[in-house]
Amino acid sequence: MTDATTAEALAERVREGELRLHELEDHADADTATAARRLLVEAQSGASLDAVGDYGFPAERADPNIENMVGTVQVPMGVAGPVEIRGGSLDGERYLPLATTEGALLASVNRGCSVLNEAGGANARVLKSGMTRAPVFRVADVVAAEALVEWVRDNEDTLAEAAEETTSHGELLDVTPYVVGDSVYLRFRYDTKDAMGMNMVTIATRAACDVVEAETDASLVAVSGNLCTDKKPAAINAVEGRGRSVTADVTIPREVVEDRLHTTPEAVAELNTRKNLVGSAKAASLGFNAHVANVVAAMFLATGQDAAQVVEGSNAITTADVRDGDLYVSVSVASLEVGTVGGGTKLPTQAEGLDVLGVRGGGDPAGSNADALAEAIAVGALAGELNLLSALASRHLSSAHAELGR
Amino acid sequence: MTDATTAEALAERVREGELRLHELEDHADADTATAARRLLVEAQSGASLDAVGDYGFPAERADPNIENMVGTVQVPMGVAGPVEIRGGSLDGERYLPLATTEGALLASVNRGCSVLNEAGGANARVLKSGMTRAPVFRVADVVAAEALVEWVRDNEDTLAEAAEETTSHGELLDVTPYVVGDSVYLRFRYDTKDAMGMNMVTIATRAACDVVEAETDASLVAVSGNLCTDKKPAAINAVEGRGRSVTADVTIPREVVEDRLHTTPEAVAELNTRKNLVGSAKAASLGFNAHVANVVAAMFLATGQDAAQVVEGSNAITTADVRDGDLYVSVSVASLEVGTVGGGTKLPTQAEGLDVLGVRGGGDPAGSNADALAEAIAVGALAGELNLLSALASRHLSSAHAELGR
Amino acid sequence: MTDATTAEALAERVREGELRLHELEDHADADTATAARRLLVEAQSGASLDAVGDYGFPAERADPNIENMVGTVQVPMGVAGPVEIRGGSLDGERYLPLATTEGALLASVNRGCSVLNEAGGANARVLKSGMTRAPVFRVADVVAAEALVEWVRDNEDTLAEAAEETTSHGELLDVTPYVVGDSVYLRFRYDTKDAMGMNMVTIATRAACDVVEAETDASLVAVSGNLCTDKKPAAINAVEGRGRSVTADVTIPREVVEDRLHTTPEAVAELNTRKNLVGSAKAASLGFNAHVANVVAAMFLATGQDAAQVVEGSNAITTADVRDGDLYVSVSVASLEVGTVGGGTKLPTQAEGLDVLGVRGGGDPAGSNADALAEAIAVGALAGELNLLSALASRHLSSAHAELGR
Amino acid sequence: MTDATTAEALAERVREGELRLHELEDHADADTATAARRLLVEAQSGASLDAVGDYGFPAERADPNIENMVGTVQVPMGVAGPVEIRGGSLDGERYLPLATTEGALLASVNRGCSVLNEAGGANARVLKSGMTRAPVFRVADVVAAEALVEWVRDNEDTLAEAAEETTSHGELLDVTPYVVGDSVYLRFRYDTKDAMGMNMVTIATRAACDVVEAETDASLVAVSGNLCTDKKPAAINAVEGRGRSVTADVTIPREVVEDRLHTTPEAVAELNTRKNLVGSAKAASLGFNAHVANVVAAMFLATGQDAAQVVEGSNAITTADVRDGDLYVSVSVASLEVGTVGGGTKLPTQAEGLDVLGVRGGGDPAGSNADALAEAIAVGALAGELNLLSALASRHLSSAHAELGR
Repeated sequence: MTDATTAEALAERVREGELRLHELEDHADADTATAARRLLVEAQSGASLDAVGDYGFPAERADPNIENMVGTVQVPMGVAGPVEIRGGSLDGERYLPLATTEGALLASVNRGCSVLNEAGGANARVLKSGMTRAPVFRVADVVAAEALVEWVRDNEDTLAEAAEETTSHGELLDVTPYVVGDSVYLRFRYDTKDAMGMNMVTIATRAACDVVEAETDASLVAVSGNLCTDKKPAAINAVEGRGRSVTADVTIPREVVEDRLHTTPEAVAELNTRKNLVGSAKAASLGFNAHVANVVAAMFLATGQDAAQVVEGSNAITTADVRDGDLYVSVSVASLEVGTVGGGTKLPTQAEGLDVLGVRGGGDPAGSNADALAEAIAVGALAGELNLLSALASRHLSSAHAELGR
Repeated sequence: MTDATTAEALAERVREGELRLHELEDHADADTATAARRLLVEAQSGASLDAVGDYGFPAERADPNIENMVGTVQVPMGVAGPVEIRGGSLDGERYLPLATTEGALLASVNRGCSVLNEAGGANARVLKSGMTRAPVFRVADVVAAEALVEWVRDNEDTLAEAAEETTSHGELLDVTPYVVGDSVYLRFRYDTKDAMGMNMVTIATRAACDVVEAETDASLVAVSGNLCTDKKPAAINAVEGRGRSVTADVTIPREVVEDRLHTTPEAVAELNTRKNLVGSAKAASLGFNAHVANVVAAMFLATGQDAAQVVEGSNAITTADVRDGDLYVSVSVASLEVGTVGGGTKLPTQAEGLDVLGVRGGGDPAGSNADALAEAIAVGALAGELNLLSALASRHLSSAHAELGR
Repeated sequence: MTDATTAEALAERVREGELRLHELEDHADADTATAARRLLVEAQSGASLDAVGDYGFPAERADPNIENMVGTVQVPMGVAGPVEIRGGSLDGERYLPLATTEGALLASVNRGCSVLNEAGGANARVLKSGMTRAPVFRVADVVAAEALVEWVRDNEDTLAEAAEETTSHGELLDVTPYVVGDSVYLRFRYDTKDAMGMNMVTIATRAACDVVEAETDASLVAVSGNLCTDKKPAAINAVEGRGRSVTADVTIPREVVEDRLHTTPEAVAELNTRKNLVGSAKAASLGFNAHVANVVAAMFLATGQDAAQVVEGSNAITTADVRDGDLYVSVSVASLEVGTVGGGTKLPTQAEGLDVLGVRGGGDPAGSNADALAEAIAVGALAGELNLLSALASRHLSSAHAELGR
Repeated sequence: MTDATTAEALAERVREGELRLHELEDHADADTATAARRLLVEAQSGASLDAVGDYGFPAERADPNIENMVGTVQVPMGVAGPVEIRGGSLDGERYLPLATTEGALLASVNRGCSVLNEAGGANARVLKSGMTRAPVFRVADVVAAEALVEWVRDNEDTLAEAAEETTSHGELLDVTPYVVGDSVYLRFRYDTKDAMGMNMVTIATRAACDVVEAETDASLVAVSGNLCTDKKPAAINAVEGRGRSVTADVTIPREVVEDRLHTTPEAVAELNTRKNLVGSAKAASLGFNAHVANVVAAMFLATGQDAAQVVEGSNAITTADVRDGDLYVSVSVASLEVGTVGGGTKLPTQAEGLDVLGVRGGGDPAGSNADALAEAIAVGALAGELNLLSALASRHLSSAHAELGR
């Protein structure tokens, strides 16, 4: 679909300063613009971009997702399972799609899924939900800060009205004020249904900020004041949640632990305490788990989520205890920001990833597909934790990697 | 290259319980095995995997990177720049490759790069380097813990010898003990040259653990006790570093700030203080920045890094100050875990991403390519911070996203 | 008032195993019991306890505050000020009482108070208030956890009723549930008026826990599950507050900064950024201030607060900015746990400390005395920050200590 | 010893503006100056300061500890024990002196001590030691930062020489650089022997800073850049330690747990996991314990330590595990800043507190008394943890407080 001659001509015009790199789509179709950029990058760097340029869909489909496109990166995708999920929104057997370049990860999750199945499947529940945006305002002093806090408490309805006018789906749940000197942060929390919702809540919050500025003496400094908190490790998310707060758990019969995982409930529980609890405590960590981020990252890539939000997805606590001789294991992810509409979910391969789970697009009721996706990821994380903890307990980590060539 | 008949036959054997999902490569070439898995997943889920199955390289090339492969996910890749980098290992103009599904990100970094260029380019330096692995041992009590700590201090050479026998590249830099009751954590830190090195240091540390167990009464609980800390947000990484600790900075002349960024040094500095410093402080965050993780994630994907390590890559502090009327901005990433050999770096599209930066494979001297990659990412992050802070300072965030359709 | 012969006889009976150390009050008046214990400790340790035994009130007055009493420790107390406080509950000039053994601290706060006065006094406001207790329950699994969370949301009134039956003053404000696997934490937040309230809320929460156990399948593990969080550094307090969240601020005219503090607003602002914001960020701290804990500790001791709660009192953020050439400085303490009734507030010297501030006993309206105390401490902290930052900015720290002999 | 007429005359001169509050010692003996201040404060506030003025030693003895003295605060002091301590520096039976106003605390520690004795006493070891001060320097950019870091590494001897010239006891152990943009923090770590050492290391570091400024282009911003970290909750202390890192532990036979603590090893271990480990994890805490700060605060007050450093003393992790049916419990305090010389240790009552432990003044070898004090505090903390965990496990907390009237 690319016109090579046009691409070369476009590249030449960029070289001569007539056009800028990001203006090419104004002068050719998206694929040709992409090809022209490859020519420029190849000439400048000496690299070949043949593989990057060999992508499987019309470039214009990626238009909402990227600028200055040159092609795609291909990340290997595999499946684990199918695994029996007993969730609040997702109930049944599912293959879990994971995209990764880390050898041994798929095998680890897959083995964990088998064990979950032998235990009758894993529970999963979304226990809290809400996407946040927290603008920061400047006020005169703490007296004015107190007045603003009171105004906000008295006018939450007005703020909701302004915010919700900008969106057909989003719903303002609450606004929590935080004051530091003459800076006032208002943490807006929304129900964004099946959308991850970052963009939706930014726009809605901006509208609410206009009202604050119109009605009070406060002056908006930035629509995000970092108490949101987006794409940074932050206790506020680990404690209060952001996106979905989701837990998966399972009780594995002792004989399954011994026969399939070659260890004991006691060994896994001890290891979890010394590593995931005490070790993470001593590291002053917000993540009390073994490798939840691995599964979050891989399932995020496979389903078109925002890879930078793997950061928040790592705020997870894994517990493992002996119960009447059996092994109880749980994974609680505090801030899993997922969506099944918008963002990268419409891209061809990512949409197929969602289809594997049966959660593409808007759910019925609204929000249930994103809940289901969160539950699937939590179960995948549980499978990954279970397997890695067991492998460590039976001391196979290094050798497993050695064999599998990670 | 796929044999459809064989794939169907294989799928059938899995359905009948003769084969397991991960054993297909033992019975067919990698592409056929992959095709068989797609058939199984499609049948189970009702999804089509056509796009996922339309990948651009022989499946066996992904053999070290994944198991149970069904294809690839294609993530849009673009370029920002070229930007002038004045690094310790990377000196010159480079296009920055970024793979993302978040609209407006490329545009943001690209605009930032232009401004960096107008300021004469950005400095970048790797200031600390070392990949860590921290096994946890059980001892009898604190008396035994004290003895173990002393033994380790007296026998670091022996541990180094054992560790380094397992690797041709890695070098043990030091071992730091941490004691919590009867758990002793030994944080091994290595120079892993151009490799990210997680697997290398796991194997090397395991060998050192064998010595500890042979020579002392300590008993290994797990080769990772979470003080490493891998793929979890943890202060130990934010404070002491892991992988590369890298800083990029720039001083932007006032007129450039005003003409190109439509704001002032004073406004950017104030915003950085209220948002990135005070706001993150109030959020109890380990990330004092605006969106460094966006750039880290996108460049990690484009160059074959481990997406789950975006977690540590978000431990970054951005500063912005007025200096003689101009704007000084810096980004310091404490724990950027990167490599230019191994892992996902050999995959076709990712290798091209590295080539765009001119850092594929082993560097000369060893380690210099990974250093250069870290510097390029830090400069990309600086560009992204600069642009987002400026956009917020001139209140364009929501509307920019609205226009660009994020 | 002590009977020496009886004391010796009591001591002998303890030595002979007839009595236990804590049973002496059953056999003599409090002062004699105290004297007997001193004899025992002196004999065992070889120490003299003359000074400890020379206390200034009947020992029985300390009966609610200590067991196994041997006397008192005398901590030097001084005053700073008087300082003009423009608070929400405390309005006017006050001497600030501080008890400390750290030379230079009083002088520092005193100098800060003078500067506050020259600026017309300091603002202070309590912006949030509530004492918390968070029991932890064990449930069967995440399905049961979800049910418990829902039950709590539906039965907050019932819980409030049960809790408030145990107290004439306390009022349940809200209950926030947090789930980690099969552990459910319920953070009860109360208005405890002029009491710090830790004991009150423990008893009230225990009553509420009885209802939870009676009405649901949840099983109480402990009345405190550490999400309270009492006497530990914890982000939940720094973010959400505990006790009083209080801010004090002031704008100091440039000439005052220059003439009295021998520095400039610019120098103080820069120092605050590099030390209190960026430095604390790099230390992964929850305290973004210079030495707020010094003032909190000294005023806590002088007014009978719980010295161990200095921990939470150090969760403070100090900001300093140049405003139209002048210097704006603020201190926001997130979790200041204070009371003017109960605990150590009734002891003679501590009661006098409260009297110096005019806040002893219950306030009118209820809670206003504890609010006023919080405001006074915040202003003291502001004075201390202002002076230390200025001293550092003019490089006097070490020499000041050298001269003052700390 | 006070001259009432002179006091009144002095007070009058202050009222008339002839003298300032802190200048009184220049015109009368310390006690008279103190009396004069009481008159002023009483007149201004309406408070009586009789009890505060009834202190038991010549006011001039507090001269190094306070300015603007008006008297003392008397904090009730009791003893727990004696308890058998098997430490590295303290070996034998000791009464533990605690000063507190929190009812039930002494009883709690005392009961814990009995149980430790029944188990044969508690182990204690100081595992790491060093007092830190971290100045912050401004440099031109990251290129200059890199040069400074290298200069420091090459000139540690020169820095040590300069630092150690200011002190007869202190010894520079190492200097660790941290870079954030154009701010460079150098964390100096010293062996301060039996002194807590904060003042000593400030003076020594200041001398070293002079060398840095003379020999490089770096400019000192402040002698403390908050990476020390003093009197703030900070992960750098929790992870790397400050002052003494000390652990105490014990194994309690099952029958002792059952008979004396009325619970089981299993119940205590479960409670410790759900409360101190998982609960603190969910609270994003740096303190994984029940109430270590209570004991630290009380023993700090009783022995003349700095009450504001209770903050760092709360960075403690408590573990509890079942071992062959018995109960293993440990407390590890990461950053316990203690001294037996200087500061408040010379005051009469506090000196007696140190004598009770047998650790007053300089130890032989130097540092051993401060080590011993740290060990005693750790054992006291262990006793407190053991008792509170057991009480919670048998559900006695609220009722115990109710009975004991806290």
